[in-house]
Amino acid sequence: MAEPDATFLMALADAADRETLPRFRAGGGVDNKLGKGAFDPVTEADRAAEQAIVGLIRRDFPNHAILGEEFGETAAAPGGEARQWVIDPIDGTRAFIAGIPVWGTLVGHYVDGRARLGLMSQPFTGERFYADGSGTFLKRGDEAPRRLATRKTTSLEAATLFTTSPRLFAGGLLERFEKLEARARLTRFGTDCYAFAMLAAGHVDLVVESGLKPYDIAALIAIVEQAGGVVTTFSGGRPEAGGDVLAAATPELHAAAAAILAG
Amino acid sequence: MAEPDATFLMALADAADRETLPRFRAGGGVDNKLGKGAFDPVTEADRAAEQAIVGLIRRDFPNHAILGEEFGETAAAPGGEARQWVIDPIDGTRAFIAGIPVWGTLVGHYVDGRARLGLMSQPFTGERFYADGSGTFLKRGDEAPRRLATRKTTSLEAATLFTTSPRLFAGGLLERFEKLEARARLTRFGTDCYAFAMLAAGHVDLVVESGLKPYDIAALIAIVEQAGGVVTTFSGGRPEAGGDVLAAATPELHAAAAAILAG
Repeated sequence: MAEPDATFLMALADAADRETLPRFRAGGGVDNKLGKGAFDPVTEADRAAEQAIVGLIRRDFPNHAILGEEFGETAAAPGGEARQWVIDPIDGTRAFIAGIPVWGTLVGHYVDGRARLGLMSQPFTGERFYADGSGTFLKRGDEAPRRLATRKTTSLEAATLFTTSPRLFAGGLLERFEKLEARARLTRFGTDCYAFAMLAAGHVDLVVESGLKPYDIAALIAIVEQAGGVVTTFSGGRPEAGGDVLAAATPELHAAAAAILAG
Repeated sequence: MAEPDATFLMALADAADRETLPRFRAGGGVDNKLGKGAFDPVTEADRAAEQAIVGLIRRDFPNHAILGEEFGETAAAPGGEARQWVIDPIDGTRAFIAGIPVWGTLVGHYVDGRARLGLMSQPFTGERFYADGSGTFLKRGDEAPRRLATRKTTSLEAATLFTTSPRLFAGGLLERFEKLEARARLTRFGTDCYAFAMLAAGHVDLVVESGLKPYDIAALIAIVEQAGGVVTTFSGGRPEAGGDVLAAATPELHAAAAAILAG
Protein backbone atom coordinates (compact mmCIF):
# COMPACT_ATOMS: atom_id res chain seq x y z
CA MET A 1 0.00 0.00 0.00
CA ALA A 2 1.50 3.28 -1.10
CA GLU A 3 -0.59 5.94 0.66
CA PRO A 4 -3.54 5.52 3.04
CA ASP A 5 -6.91 6.08 1.38
CA ALA A 6 -10.64 5.97 2.18
CA THR A 7 -10.62 2.16 2.10
CA PHE A 8 -7.96 2.11 4.81
CA LEU A 9 -9.91 4.66 6.88
CA MET A 10 -13.00 2.40 6.68
CA ALA A 11 -10.89 -0.55 7.83
CA LEU A 12 -9.75 1.51 10.83
CA ALA A 13 -13.38 2.38 11.59
CA ASP A 14 -14.41 -1.28 11.36
CA ALA A 15 -11.67 -2.28 13.78
CA ALA A 16 -12.48 0.51 16.26
CA ASP A 17 -16.25 0.00 16.10
CA ARG A 18 -15.83 -3.67 17.01
CA GLU A 19 -14.23 -2.55 20.29
CA THR A 20 -16.34 0.50 21.13
CA LEU A 21 -19.92 -0.34 20.17
CA PRO A 22 -20.35 -3.52 22.26
CA ARG A 23 -19.11 -1.57 25.31
CA PHE A 24 -21.38 1.43 24.73
CA ARG A 25 -24.20 1.39 27.31
CA ALA A 26 -22.97 -1.98 28.52
CA GLY A 27 -22.91 -0.68 32.11
CA GLY A 28 -26.59 0.23 32.21
CA GLY A 29 -28.23 -0.57 35.52
CA VAL A 30 -24.96 -1.54 37.14
CA ASP A 31 -24.26 -0.04 40.54
CA ASN A 32 -21.72 2.72 40.31
CA LYS A 33 -19.16 2.24 43.05
CA LEU A 34 -16.71 4.91 41.93
CA GLY A 35 -16.26 7.95 44.13
CA LYS A 36 -15.48 11.32 42.65
CA GLY A 37 -11.72 10.95 43.03
CA ALA A 38 -11.73 7.56 41.36
CA PHE A 39 -13.42 8.76 38.18
CA ASP A 40 -11.23 8.03 35.18
CA PRO A 41 -12.52 8.55 31.67
CA VAL A 42 -10.04 6.07 30.25
CA THR A 43 -12.35 3.17 29.67
CA GLU A 44 -11.68 -0.30 28.40
CA ALA A 45 -13.20 0.75 25.10
CA ASP A 46 -10.67 3.55 24.76
CA ARG A 47 -7.70 1.25 25.16
CA ALA A 48 -9.01 -1.59 23.05
CA ALA A 49 -10.01 0.72 20.18
CA GLU A 50 -6.64 2.44 20.13
CA GLN A 51 -4.83 -0.90 20.13
CA ALA A 52 -6.95 -2.09 17.22
CA ILE A 53 -6.24 1.08 15.21
CA VAL A 54 -2.53 1.03 15.98
CA GLY A 55 -2.36 -2.63 14.97
CA LEU A 56 -3.67 -1.88 11.47
CA ILE A 57 -1.40 1.13 11.02
CA ARG A 58 1.68 -0.87 12.09
CA ARG A 59 0.72 -3.65 9.69
CA ASP A 60 0.19 -1.44 6.63
CA PHE A 61 2.37 1.62 7.39
CA PRO A 62 5.07 0.34 9.72
CA ASN A 63 7.36 3.32 9.36
CA HIS A 64 4.76 6.03 10.14
CA ALA A 65 4.83 7.87 13.47
CA ILE A 66 1.82 7.41 15.77
CA LEU A 67 0.44 9.67 18.51
CA GLY A 68 -2.36 8.12 20.55
CA GLU A 69 -4.36 9.46 23.48
CA GLU A 70 -3.95 6.25 25.45
CA PHE A 71 -0.50 4.93 24.69
CA GLY A 72 1.44 8.07 23.79
CA GLU A 73 3.87 8.64 20.98
CA THR A 74 5.75 6.29 18.68
CA ALA A 75 8.47 7.85 16.54
CA ALA A 76 8.60 7.32 12.81
CA ALA A 77 10.95 4.70 11.42
CA PRO A 78 13.48 5.76 8.74
CA GLY A 79 11.60 6.90 5.66
CA GLY A 80 8.39 7.59 7.58
CA GLU A 81 9.35 10.89 9.18
CA ALA A 82 6.84 13.00 7.27
CA ARG A 83 3.83 10.79 8.11
CA GLN A 84 2.04 10.77 11.45
CA TRP A 85 -1.21 9.25 12.69
CA VAL A 86 -3.00 10.98 15.56
CA ILE A 87 -5.64 8.95 17.42
CA ASP A 88 -8.37 9.66 19.96
CA PRO A 89 -10.12 6.31 20.35
CA ILE A 90 -13.13 7.88 22.11
CA ASP A 91 -13.59 11.61 21.89
CA GLY A 92 -16.50 12.61 24.12
CA THR A 93 -15.87 10.24 26.99
CA ARG A 94 -18.62 11.84 29.09
CA ALA A 95 -21.14 11.28 26.34
CA PHE A 96 -19.97 7.67 25.99
CA ILE A 97 -20.30 7.06 29.73
CA ALA A 98 -23.77 8.63 29.79
CA GLY A 99 -25.12 6.70 26.81
CA ILE A 100 -25.39 9.74 24.51
CA PRO A 101 -24.37 8.85 20.93
CA VAL A 102 -22.38 11.99 20.08
CA TRP A 103 -18.92 10.60 20.90
CA GLY A 104 -16.63 9.44 18.13
CA THR A 105 -13.47 7.56 17.29
CA LEU A 106 -11.04 10.06 15.76
CA VAL A 107 -8.10 9.27 13.51
CA GLY A 108 -6.11 11.98 11.76
CA HIS A 109 -3.21 11.61 9.35
CA TYR A 110 -0.61 14.36 9.03
CA VAL A 111 1.87 14.76 6.19
CA ASP A 112 4.74 17.13 6.94
CA GLY A 113 2.83 18.27 10.03
CA ARG A 114 -0.29 19.15 8.05
CA ALA A 115 -3.65 17.36 8.28
CA ARG A 116 -4.36 15.40 5.11
CA LEU A 117 -6.84 12.67 6.14
CA GLY A 118 -9.45 12.45 8.86
CA LEU A 119 -11.95 9.92 10.19
CA MET A 120 -14.70 10.21 12.79
CA SER A 121 -16.71 7.06 13.41
CA GLN A 122 -19.93 7.03 15.48
CA PRO A 123 -21.00 3.39 15.39
CA PHE A 124 -24.30 3.66 17.30
CA THR A 125 -25.76 5.95 14.64
CA GLY A 126 -23.74 4.09 12.01
CA GLU A 127 -22.09 7.27 10.74
CA ARG A 128 -18.58 7.69 9.39
CA PHE A 129 -17.41 11.17 8.53
CA TYR A 130 -14.12 11.19 6.66
CA ALA A 131 -11.82 13.27 4.51
CA ASP A 132 -9.62 11.38 2.06
CA GLY A 133 -7.75 14.22 0.39
CA SER A 134 -10.36 14.64 -2.34
CA GLY A 135 -13.17 15.90 -0.11
CA THR A 136 -15.23 15.17 2.98
CA PHE A 137 -17.82 12.41 2.97
CA LEU A 138 -20.48 10.87 5.20
CA LYS A 139 -21.10 7.17 4.91
CA ARG A 140 -23.95 5.75 6.96
CA GLY A 141 -24.36 2.00 7.25
CA ASP A 142 -24.53 0.46 3.80
CA GLU A 143 -25.48 3.68 2.05
CA ALA A 144 -23.17 5.13 -0.60
CA PRO A 145 -20.85 7.89 0.69
CA ARG A 146 -22.31 11.39 0.34
CA ARG A 147 -20.05 14.41 -0.22
CA LEU A 148 -20.39 17.07 2.48
CA ALA A 149 -20.08 20.85 2.22
CA THR A 150 -20.22 23.57 4.84
CA ARG A 151 -23.06 26.09 4.84
CA LYS A 152 -22.37 29.48 3.26
CA THR A 153 -23.04 31.51 6.41
CA THR A 154 -20.93 34.67 6.51
CA SER A 155 -22.33 36.75 9.41
CA LEU A 156 -22.23 36.03 13.15
CA GLU A 157 -25.88 37.04 13.47
CA ALA A 158 -26.89 34.11 11.24
CA ALA A 159 -24.49 31.61 12.81
CA THR A 160 -25.17 28.65 15.07
CA LEU A 161 -22.34 28.29 17.60
CA PHE A 162 -21.29 25.11 19.41
CA THR A 163 -18.92 24.38 22.24
CA THR A 164 -18.62 21.50 24.68
CA SER A 165 -18.96 23.53 27.87
CA PRO A 166 -18.64 27.17 28.94
CA ARG A 167 -16.77 25.73 31.96
CA LEU A 168 -13.76 25.04 29.73
CA PHE A 169 -12.98 28.71 29.05
CA ALA A 170 -10.65 30.16 31.68
CA GLY A 171 -10.44 33.83 32.63
CA GLY A 172 -10.37 36.24 29.72
CA LEU A 173 -11.31 33.50 27.28
CA LEU A 174 -14.74 33.11 28.88
CA GLU A 175 -15.42 36.81 28.46
CA ARG A 176 -14.50 36.64 24.77
CA PHE A 177 -16.57 33.51 24.24
CA GLU A 178 -19.58 35.22 25.84
CA LYS A 179 -19.10 38.17 23.50
CA LEU A 180 -19.24 35.77 20.58
CA GLU A 181 -22.25 33.98 22.10
CA ALA A 182 -24.11 37.31 22.37
CA ARG A 183 -23.65 37.88 18.64
CA ALA A 184 -24.55 34.40 17.40
CA ARG A 185 -28.04 33.33 16.37
CA LEU A 186 -28.03 30.39 18.75
CA THR A 187 -25.53 28.60 20.97
CA ARG A 188 -25.53 25.02 22.11
CA PHE A 189 -23.32 23.08 24.51
CA GLY A 190 -22.13 19.54 24.91
CA THR A 191 -21.20 17.96 21.62
CA ASP A 192 -17.45 17.29 21.42
CA CYS A 193 -16.40 15.99 17.98
CA TYR A 194 -19.96 15.70 16.71
CA ALA A 195 -20.27 19.48 16.35
CA PHE A 196 -17.29 19.58 13.95
CA ALA A 197 -18.88 16.83 11.87
CA MET A 198 -22.12 18.81 11.72
CA LEU A 199 -20.14 21.90 10.68
CA ALA A 200 -18.67 19.90 7.80
CA ALA A 201 -22.18 18.67 6.93
CA GLY A 202 -23.64 22.19 6.76
CA HIS A 203 -25.81 22.17 9.88
CA VAL A 204 -23.62 24.17 12.28
CA ASP A 205 -21.61 27.32 11.48
CA LEU A 206 -19.07 27.80 14.27
CA VAL A 207 -17.34 25.48 16.72
CA VAL A 208 -15.12 26.91 19.45
CA GLU A 209 -13.11 24.77 21.85
CA SER A 210 -10.42 25.66 24.37
CA GLY A 211 -7.38 23.67 25.48
CA LEU A 212 -7.57 20.87 22.92
CA LYS A 213 -4.88 18.21 22.68
CA PRO A 214 -3.62 17.31 19.19
CA TYR A 215 -5.68 14.09 19.19
CA ASP A 216 -8.89 16.04 20.01
CA ILE A 217 -8.68 17.94 16.73
CA ALA A 218 -6.35 16.03 14.34
CA ALA A 219 -9.06 14.05 12.53
CA LEU A 220 -11.46 16.99 12.42
CA ILE A 221 -9.10 19.41 10.64
CA ALA A 222 -9.22 17.56 7.32
CA ILE A 223 -12.95 16.84 7.76
CA VAL A 224 -13.71 20.56 8.16
CA GLU A 225 -11.20 21.87 5.60
CA GLN A 226 -12.09 19.46 2.81
CA ALA A 227 -15.79 20.35 3.27
CA GLY A 228 -14.95 24.02 2.64
CA GLY A 229 -14.56 25.24 6.23
CA VAL A 230 -11.70 26.98 7.99
CA VAL A 231 -10.08 25.77 11.21
CA THR A 232 -7.28 27.53 13.08
CA THR A 233 -6.20 28.47 16.57
CA PHE A 234 -7.85 31.59 18.03
CA SER A 235 -4.89 33.63 16.83
CA GLY A 236 -5.16 32.28 13.27
CA GLY A 237 -2.35 29.71 13.36
CA ARG A 238 -2.48 26.13 12.11
CA PRO A 239 -4.47 23.89 14.49
CA GLU A 240 -2.53 20.61 14.15
CA ALA A 241 -1.00 20.94 17.63
CA GLY A 242 -4.36 21.67 19.29
CA GLY A 243 -4.86 24.52 21.77
CA ASP A 244 -7.73 27.01 21.50
CA VAL A 245 -9.46 26.14 18.26
CA LEU A 246 -12.00 27.94 16.08
CA ALA A 247 -13.73 26.20 13.16
CA ALA A 248 -16.02 28.10 10.82
CA ALA A 249 -18.18 27.34 7.80
CA THR A 250 -16.66 30.12 5.65
CA PRO A 251 -13.56 32.34 5.62
CA GLU A 252 -15.75 35.44 6.22
CA LEU A 253 -17.40 33.93 9.29
CA HIS A 254 -14.03 32.72 10.54
CA ALA A 255 -12.60 36.22 10.31
CA ALA A 256 -15.57 37.71 12.16
CA ALA A 257 -15.32 35.18 15.01
CA ALA A 258 -11.52 35.35 15.19
CA ALA A 259 -11.67 39.13 15.58
CA ILE A 260 -13.61 38.57 18.82
CA LEU A 261 -11.76 35.50 20.12
CA ALA A 262 -8.22 36.71 19.46
CA GLY A 263 -8.92 39.50 22.00
CA MET B 1 -60.23 0.93 22.15
CA ALA B 2 -60.69 1.17 25.90
CA GLU B 3 -57.45 2.63 27.19
CA PRO B 4 -54.32 3.66 25.28
CA ASP B 5 -51.52 1.09 25.43
CA ALA B 6 -48.01 0.47 24.09
CA THR B 7 -49.38 -0.41 20.65
CA PHE B 8 -51.09 2.97 20.44
CA LEU B 9 -47.88 4.73 21.57
CA MET B 10 -45.97 2.97 18.77
CA ALA B 11 -48.61 4.12 16.27
CA LEU B 12 -48.10 7.68 17.49
CA ALA B 13 -44.34 7.28 17.08
CA ASP B 14 -44.76 5.90 13.54
CA ALA B 15 -46.94 8.87 12.58
CA ALA B 16 -44.57 11.43 14.11
CA ASP B 17 -41.42 9.84 12.71
CA ARG B 18 -42.84 10.03 9.18
CA GLU B 19 -43.01 13.81 9.58
CA THR B 20 -39.82 14.50 11.52
CA LEU B 21 -37.16 12.17 10.13
CA PRO B 22 -37.36 13.23 6.45
CA ARG B 23 -36.97 16.87 7.56
CA PHE B 24 -34.02 16.20 9.89
CA ARG B 25 -30.80 17.53 8.29
CA ALA B 26 -32.78 18.33 5.15
CA GLY B 27 -31.43 21.90 5.18
CA GLY B 28 -27.76 20.89 5.01
CA GLY B 29 -25.69 23.12 2.78
CA VAL B 30 -28.55 25.55 2.19
CA ASP B 31 -27.75 29.21 2.61
CA ASN B 32 -29.08 30.52 5.89
CA LYS B 33 -30.83 33.81 5.24
CA LEU B 34 -32.38 34.26 8.69
CA GLY B 35 -31.15 37.09 10.84
CA LYS B 36 -31.04 36.75 14.61
CA GLY B 37 -34.43 38.35 15.15
CA ALA B 38 -36.06 36.08 12.58
CA PHE B 39 -34.99 32.85 14.25
CA ASP B 40 -38.00 30.75 15.14
CA PRO B 41 -37.55 27.21 16.40
CA VAL B 42 -41.05 26.24 15.29
CA THR B 43 -40.18 24.24 12.24
CA GLU B 44 -42.36 22.58 9.69
CA ALA B 45 -41.49 19.26 11.31
CA ASP B 46 -42.85 20.45 14.64
CA ARG B 47 -46.24 21.37 13.20
CA ALA B 48 -46.62 18.37 10.95
CA ALA B 49 -45.68 15.91 13.69
CA GLU B 50 -48.10 17.44 16.18
CA GLN B 51 -50.92 17.34 13.61
CA ALA B 52 -50.20 13.69 12.90
CA ILE B 53 -50.24 12.80 16.61
CA VAL B 54 -53.38 14.81 17.31
CA GLY B 55 -55.11 13.16 14.35
CA LEU B 56 -54.59 9.68 15.79
CA ILE B 57 -55.67 10.73 19.29
CA ARG B 58 -58.85 12.33 17.94
CA ARG B 59 -59.63 9.23 15.92
CA ASP B 60 -59.17 6.74 18.77
CA PHE B 61 -59.83 8.86 21.89
CA PRO B 62 -62.10 11.65 20.69
CA ASN B 63 -63.19 12.79 24.13
CA HIS B 64 -59.69 13.18 25.65
CA ALA B 65 -58.23 16.63 26.27
CA ILE B 66 -55.08 17.55 24.33
CA LEU B 67 -52.32 20.05 25.13
CA GLY B 68 -49.83 20.57 22.32
CA GLU B 69 -46.78 22.83 22.07
CA GLU B 70 -47.76 24.07 18.63
CA PHE B 71 -51.54 24.30 18.59
CA GLY B 72 -52.41 24.85 22.24
CA GLU B 73 -55.12 23.27 24.29
CA THR B 74 -58.25 21.34 23.39
CA ALA B 75 -60.70 20.70 26.22
CA ALA B 76 -61.98 17.24 27.00
CA ALA B 77 -65.39 16.23 25.70
CA PRO B 78 -67.99 14.91 28.17
CA GLY B 79 -66.72 11.70 29.71
CA GLY B 80 -63.10 12.47 28.87
CA GLU B 81 -62.37 15.00 31.60
CA ALA B 82 -59.88 12.84 33.47
CA ARG B 83 -57.73 12.05 30.41
CA GLN B 84 -55.24 14.43 28.83
CA TRP B 85 -52.53 14.08 26.19
CA VAL B 86 -49.55 16.43 26.37
CA ILE B 87 -47.42 16.74 23.23
CA ASP B 88 -44.04 18.25 22.33
CA PRO B 89 -43.55 17.25 18.70
CA ILE B 90 -39.83 18.14 18.77
CA ASP B 91 -38.16 18.58 22.11
CA GLY B 92 -34.62 19.81 21.53
CA THR B 93 -35.27 22.13 18.61
CA ARG B 94 -31.67 23.42 18.67
CA ALA B 95 -30.33 19.89 18.38
CA PHE B 96 -32.73 19.19 15.53
CA ILE B 97 -31.67 22.35 13.67
CA ALA B 98 -28.00 21.52 14.18
CA GLY B 99 -28.24 17.90 13.02
CA ILE B 100 -27.54 16.38 16.46
CA PRO B 101 -29.72 13.28 17.06
CA VAL B 102 -30.61 13.91 20.71
CA TRP B 103 -33.99 15.57 20.11
CA GLY B 104 -37.19 13.60 20.54
CA THR B 105 -40.92 13.56 19.93
CA LEU B 106 -42.61 13.57 23.34
CA VAL B 107 -46.14 12.41 24.12
CA GLY B 108 -47.43 12.09 27.67
CA HIS B 109 -50.78 10.85 28.88
CA TYR B 110 -52.23 12.08 32.17
CA VAL B 111 -55.06 10.46 34.11
CA ASP B 112 -56.60 12.70 36.78
CA GLY B 113 -53.66 15.06 36.31
CA ARG B 114 -51.07 12.37 36.94
CA ALA B 115 -48.63 10.99 34.33
CA ARG B 116 -49.53 7.42 33.38
CA LEU B 117 -48.01 6.87 29.91
CA GLY B 118 -45.01 8.39 28.16
CA LEU B 119 -43.31 8.15 24.77
CA MET B 120 -40.06 9.62 23.47
CA SER B 121 -39.22 8.78 19.89
CA GLN B 122 -35.78 9.50 18.32
CA PRO B 123 -36.15 8.25 14.76
CA PHE B 124 -32.58 8.88 13.51
CA THR B 125 -31.16 6.44 16.08
CA GLY B 126 -34.34 4.35 15.76
CA GLU B 127 -35.02 4.49 19.50
CA ARG B 128 -38.37 4.59 21.24
CA PHE B 129 -38.42 5.00 24.99
CA TYR B 130 -41.86 4.46 26.48
CA ALA B 131 -43.75 3.76 29.67
CA ASP B 132 -47.05 1.92 29.32
CA GLY B 133 -48.16 1.68 32.95
CA SER B 134 -46.39 -1.65 33.51
CA GLY B 135 -42.83 -0.34 33.20
CA THR B 136 -40.42 1.59 30.99
CA PHE B 137 -39.08 0.06 27.79
CA LEU B 138 -36.65 0.80 24.97
CA LYS B 139 -37.49 -0.49 21.54
CA ARG B 140 -34.89 0.06 18.84
CA GLY B 141 -35.78 -0.65 15.24
CA ASP B 142 -37.08 -4.19 14.88
CA GLU B 143 -35.55 -5.40 18.14
CA ALA B 144 -37.82 -6.68 20.91
CA PRO B 145 -38.57 -4.09 23.61
CA ARG B 146 -36.12 -4.14 26.51
CA ARG B 147 -37.21 -3.19 30.05
CA LEU B 148 -35.25 -0.28 31.52
CA ALA B 149 -34.26 0.41 35.11
CA THR B 150 -32.48 3.34 36.71
CA ARG B 151 -29.02 2.89 38.25
CA LYS B 152 -28.86 2.45 42.03
CA THR B 153 -26.72 5.51 42.67
CA THR B 154 -27.46 7.04 46.07
CA SER B 155 -24.70 9.66 46.65
CA LEU B 156 -24.06 12.93 44.82
CA GLU B 157 -20.34 12.15 44.67
CA ALA B 158 -21.06 9.13 42.46
CA ALA B 159 -23.68 10.85 40.32
CA THR B 160 -23.53 12.01 36.71
CA LEU B 161 -25.53 15.24 36.33
CA PHE B 162 -27.13 16.55 33.14
CA THR B 163 -28.76 19.80 32.18
CA THR B 164 -29.41 21.50 28.85
CA SER B 165 -27.54 24.73 29.59
CA PRO B 166 -26.27 26.61 32.64
CA ARG B 167 -27.65 29.69 30.85
CA LEU B 168 -31.18 28.58 31.73
CA PHE B 169 -30.77 29.04 35.49
CA ALA B 170 -31.65 32.57 36.57
CA GLY B 171 -30.31 34.32 39.64
CA GLY B 172 -30.28 32.23 42.80
CA LEU B 173 -31.05 29.08 40.85
CA LEU B 174 -27.68 29.24 39.08
CA GLU B 175 -25.87 29.42 42.40
CA ARG B 176 -27.73 26.35 43.69
CA PHE B 177 -27.12 24.47 40.45
CA GLU B 178 -23.39 25.23 40.70
CA LYS B 179 -23.38 23.92 44.26
CA LEU B 180 -24.88 20.69 42.99
CA GLU B 181 -22.42 20.61 40.07
CA ALA B 182 -19.50 20.93 42.51
CA ARG B 183 -20.69 17.82 44.37
CA ALA B 184 -21.44 15.61 41.35
CA ARG B 185 -18.95 13.21 39.81
CA LEU B 186 -19.38 14.72 36.36
CA THR B 187 -21.68 17.23 34.69
CA ARG B 188 -22.64 17.49 31.07
CA PHE B 189 -24.67 20.02 29.11
CA GLY B 190 -26.91 20.03 26.07
CA THR B 191 -29.15 17.01 25.96
CA ASP B 192 -32.81 18.02 26.40
CA CYS B 193 -35.13 14.98 26.61
CA TYR B 194 -32.37 12.50 25.80
CA ALA B 195 -30.84 12.89 29.28
CA PHE B 196 -34.11 11.79 30.93
CA ALA B 197 -34.22 8.72 28.67
CA MET B 198 -30.64 7.87 29.67
CA LEU B 199 -31.60 8.30 33.34
CA ALA B 200 -34.39 5.77 32.83
CA ALA B 201 -31.91 3.47 31.07
CA GLY B 202 -29.40 3.57 33.94
CA HIS B 203 -26.63 5.63 32.33
CA VAL B 204 -27.26 9.03 33.96
CA ASP B 205 -28.15 9.71 37.60
CA LEU B 206 -29.52 13.26 37.81
CA VAL B 207 -31.24 15.60 35.37
CA VAL B 208 -32.02 19.17 36.39
CA GLU B 209 -33.95 21.60 34.19
CA SER B 210 -35.37 25.03 34.91
CA GLY B 211 -38.51 26.68 33.54
CA LEU B 212 -40.02 23.66 31.77
CA LYS B 213 -43.43 23.82 30.14
CA PRO B 214 -45.82 20.90 30.78
CA TYR B 215 -45.09 19.46 27.31
CA ASP B 216 -41.30 19.50 27.98
CA ILE B 217 -41.69 17.01 30.81
CA ALA B 218 -45.08 15.23 30.47
CA ALA B 219 -43.82 12.20 28.53
CA LEU B 220 -40.68 11.90 30.61
CA ILE B 221 -42.39 11.65 34.00
CA ALA B 222 -43.83 8.18 33.37
CA ILE B 223 -40.62 7.10 31.59
CA VAL B 224 -38.51 8.01 34.63
CA GLU B 225 -40.97 6.85 37.32
CA GLN B 226 -41.77 3.47 35.78
CA ALA B 227 -38.02 2.78 35.47
CA GLY B 228 -37.62 3.31 39.22
CA GLY B 229 -36.60 6.97 39.28
CA VAL B 230 -38.08 9.98 41.05
CA VAL B 231 -39.11 13.20 39.33
CA THR B 232 -40.51 16.29 41.07
CA THR B 233 -40.23 20.05 41.08
CA PHE B 234 -37.25 21.49 43.01
CA SER B 235 -39.51 21.88 46.03
CA GLY B 236 -40.67 18.28 45.89
CA GLY B 237 -44.09 18.77 44.27
CA ARG B 238 -45.58 16.81 41.38
CA PRO B 239 -43.95 17.79 38.06
CA GLU B 240 -46.95 17.43 35.71
CA ALA B 241 -47.29 21.21 35.29
CA GLY B 242 -43.57 21.70 34.51
CA GLY B 243 -41.46 24.39 36.17
CA ASP B 244 -38.07 23.67 37.76
CA VAL B 245 -37.69 19.92 37.56
CA LEU B 246 -35.33 17.45 39.24
CA ALA B 247 -35.17 13.79 38.14
CA ALA B 248 -33.06 11.26 40.02
CA ALA B 249 -32.20 7.59 39.72
CA THR B 250 -33.13 6.77 43.35
CA PRO B 251 -35.13 8.35 46.20
CA GLU B 252 -31.92 8.79 48.24
CA LEU B 253 -30.16 10.66 45.44
CA HIS B 254 -33.28 12.73 44.81
CA ALA B 255 -33.38 13.79 48.47
CA ALA B 256 -29.69 14.76 48.44
CA ALA B 257 -30.07 16.87 45.27
CA ALA B 258 -33.38 18.42 46.38
CA ALA B 259 -31.78 19.55 49.65
CA ILE B 260 -29.41 21.70 47.58
CA LEU B 261 -31.81 22.85 44.85
CA ALA B 262 -34.74 23.76 47.10
CA GLY B 263 -32.47 26.44 48.61
